[in-house]
Amino acid sequence: MKLSAFGRKFTRNSGILRLMDDLGSAISAGSGKMLMLGGGNPAHIPEVQKYFRTRMESILANGKEFEQTIGDYDGPQGENGFIEVLAELLRKEYGWKIGPENIALTNGSQTAFFFLFNMFAGKGSYGGSRIRRKILFPLAPEYIGYADMGLSDDFFAARKPGIEMLGSQIFKYHVDFSNLKVSGEIGAICVSRPTNPTGNVLTDDEIMNLSDIAGSHDIPLIIDNAYGTPFPNIIFTDAKPIWNENIVMCMSLSKLGLPGLRTGIVIANRKIISSISAMNAIFSLAPGGFGVSLAYDIVASGKIISISRDIIRPFYQAKAETAVSHIQREFKDCGCCIHKPEGALFLWLWFKGLPISSMELYERLKKRGVLIVPGNYFFPGMDGSWKHRNECIRLTYAQDDGVVRKGISIMADEVRKIRRTGNKSR
Amino acid sequence: MKLSAFGRKFTRNSGILRLMDDLGSAISAGSGKMLMLGGGNPAHIPEVQKYFRTRMESILANGKEFEQTIGDYDGPQGENGFIEVLAELLRKEYGWKIGPENIALTNGSQTAFFFLFNMFAGKGSYGGSRIRRKILFPLAPEYIGYADMGLSDDFFAARKPGIEMLGSQIFKYHVDFSNLKVSGEIGAICVSRPTNPTGNVLTDDEIMNLSDIAGSHDIPLIIDNAYGTPFPNIIFTDAKPIWNENIVMCMSLSKLGLPGLRTGIVIANRKIISSISAMNAIFSLAPGGFGVSLAYDIVASGKIISISRDIIRPFYQAKAETAVSHIQREFKDCGCCIHKPEGALFLWLWFKGLPISSMELYERLKKRGVLIVPGNYFFPGMDGSWKHRNECIRLTYAQDDGVVRKGISIMADEVRKIRRTGNKSR
Repeated sequence: MKLSAFGRKFTRNSGILRLMDDLGSAISAGSGKMLMLGGGNPAHIPEVQKYFRTRMESILANGKEFEQTIGDYDGPQGENGFIEVLAELLRKEYGWKIGPENIALTNGSQTAFFFLFNMFAGKGSYGGSRIRRKILFPLAPEYIGYADMGLSDDFFAARKPGIEMLGSQIFKYHVDFSNLKVSGEIGAICVSRPTNPTGNVLTDDEIMNLSDIAGSHDIPLIIDNAYGTPFPNIIFTDAKPIWNENIVMCMSLSKLGLPGLRTGIVIANRKIISSISAMNAIFSLAPGGFGVSLAYDIVASGKIISISRDIIRPFYQAKAETAVSHIQREFKDCGCCIHKPEGALFLWLWFKGLPISSMELYERLKKRGVLIVPGNYFFPGMDGSWKHRNECIRLTYAQDDGVVRKGISIMADEVRKIRRTGNKSR
Repeated sequence: MKLSAFGRKFTRNSGILRLMDDLGSAISAGSGKMLMLGGGNPAHIPEVQKYFRTRMESILANGKEFEQTIGDYDGPQGENGFIEVLAELLRKEYGWKIGPENIALTNGSQTAFFFLFNMFAGKGSYGGSRIRRKILFPLAPEYIGYADMGLSDDFFAARKPGIEMLGSQIFKYHVDFSNLKVSGEIGAICVSRPTNPTGNVLTDDEIMNLSDIAGSHDIPLIIDNAYGTPFPNIIFTDAKPIWNENIVMCMSLSKLGLPGLRTGIVIANRKIISSISAMNAIFSLAPGGFGVSLAYDIVASGKIISISRDIIRPFYQAKAETAVSHIQREFKDCGCCIHKPEGALFLWLWFKGLPISSMELYERLKKRGVLIVPGNYFFPGMDGSWKHRNECIRLTYAQDDGVVRKGISIMADEVRKIRRTGNKSR
């Protein structure tokens, strides 16, 4: 099979392929076969699912609504009705100065990032000299799914975080603003908030600061808000939903409970939105309409905000606390620091001084029936060697507490063994 | 807004954006506002919709099936259960030597073509010298949606068809095999069957011939089977479903009646399928699972074949015949040739010697409330001037017969006026 450069680049094994393969196999194998602490599948929250079931029933009961939803293409910007009620909700609740011209839908948020990254970085003339620009991650580690998205090589730049210890077993990363040089080779700044994989939540001030820095360089700040506020609002700190004409806010219905329906939402100035629409048409004709149809009424009524705040957030916060207490108990004697859990579905664990790499730890745990994600995948754009990168793992606590507990137990056992025996095999 | 080369290329106006914009506006404006003879939205066929409604009801009634379908990511290859029953159906019915490892799903067929085209063409070393390869369309005109998909410029090559007159008002294109030189710069051959926009159906012999030619150059033959056999089977001639290890068969659930659910299906050798999975993971995490869930039972039972043959095909064939008779009556005195309608949802009309371009005709008709697609968009990869390219239009007959009839009437009136007065405005 003779492949183009594109073909070679994008069909080799990527971190995100491994993660999604693991996830798919674990889900289709059925519960119990694998302890799934790896991928980002959201929990099935009964109260939330009830809303979607009721909505589904009312779509079926409402004349031809079902037939229209499955049977018609939407336009390349996405379903108008949903876009209108979402714009109205965000305008009314948060005073954002937006209208339907500021929102586009995509087949999942991942696809939106492919569009956005490649329109703002890579080869180009950028209104003058022919240069190559990069996407800057001001706070590494960042999302594994970004790593392979650049159409050209050397596509990302990332900055090391400041590390603050908050007690013996808890630490927190900070944006190191003193080291955040933004040169002409940066095409956009991107952060996930909460950060995937660490669960760090950038403060309102940090976001405004990043937005100002981006604005002063005439480049956008892209915020990956897949777990963020106002929905699904898996944030355990105070964080305001922030948007302005220079912020590209990427949201998703996945973590609200609809990952099977692949619905991404981009909120940005109208030029960017019309660009997203144009790319939707070329690469996928139109985004799917079923996800937004299932979410329509809770957006129109504004209930999506209270569901997120009163059901989804407390659900995950309780699970995070339970998982943290399992870890603190199980790892008492074998060195495991937890990034302060401020949001998202993940815990980021740091095994300082572990004699094997997180990649090897992943392989060993997989053999014992526990799936986690090795941390080295979460440093796209970071050059040089930094031991820390191979000492961390990402763990999902979204699944059943019993699964999480058992997985943590096995992990602690394995880490204890490794620390005791050193790395004999290496 | 400073854009990369990618950003500039893919956010400018494309034919497919115009078409999908027109389609979206017409659908959301509601029926009656615009006579929609433009886009490729399939008809709502009540008997078919009934299957999907019944299936939806049974998903809701079957324990947690609804919650799992919306609430879980599939793996990057797509939903295993559907892939298995589809492989079994094609093995059993047509003797294709395939298993689950030969099928991958995508978020719509358009996305599959983006993957396939760019993995087989564009810049690369192709196992040796650094060259640039192209996708070859052996029978222009070809689908408008291909035109903008290449990540590099000069991405397509196309060959002029042979034109055969079958009476005074009917003509047919043929692959001109005598002119089908395949050089080392060709990375794959691609045909749509039925051809979008013309409704031409390549014979089994033509397909085998193309497959042999591709095989002899060690490149794949990609068949866009979105309207083809065995489903949705909108083909009015005899045509066998043909697959071999060198054919990449791209199918879709859209024209079966599920365009809102964005489900593409790729059937190919296992190397290509694992490449598609890898690209799914990177560009969209996973394909959506709702479309295949709605189609699961008719694939598992094999009923999808009889539904296509006994309901969908006759439905469109009757509409095609009605539309043709409207056109032959309305255009009696003003020169309109119809490509022999052998399948798909379209008629391809040739206004020989029209004093204005099809693009201008499109604009004039839009002002009169009739949407069609100007033919010039359907010649990706064809260099040089060829008057024929600007003399044709594509018309969809999938919508209500009253709409089609009225649209044709207005079009005939406009063409008559143009032919009578010449092109005064030019």
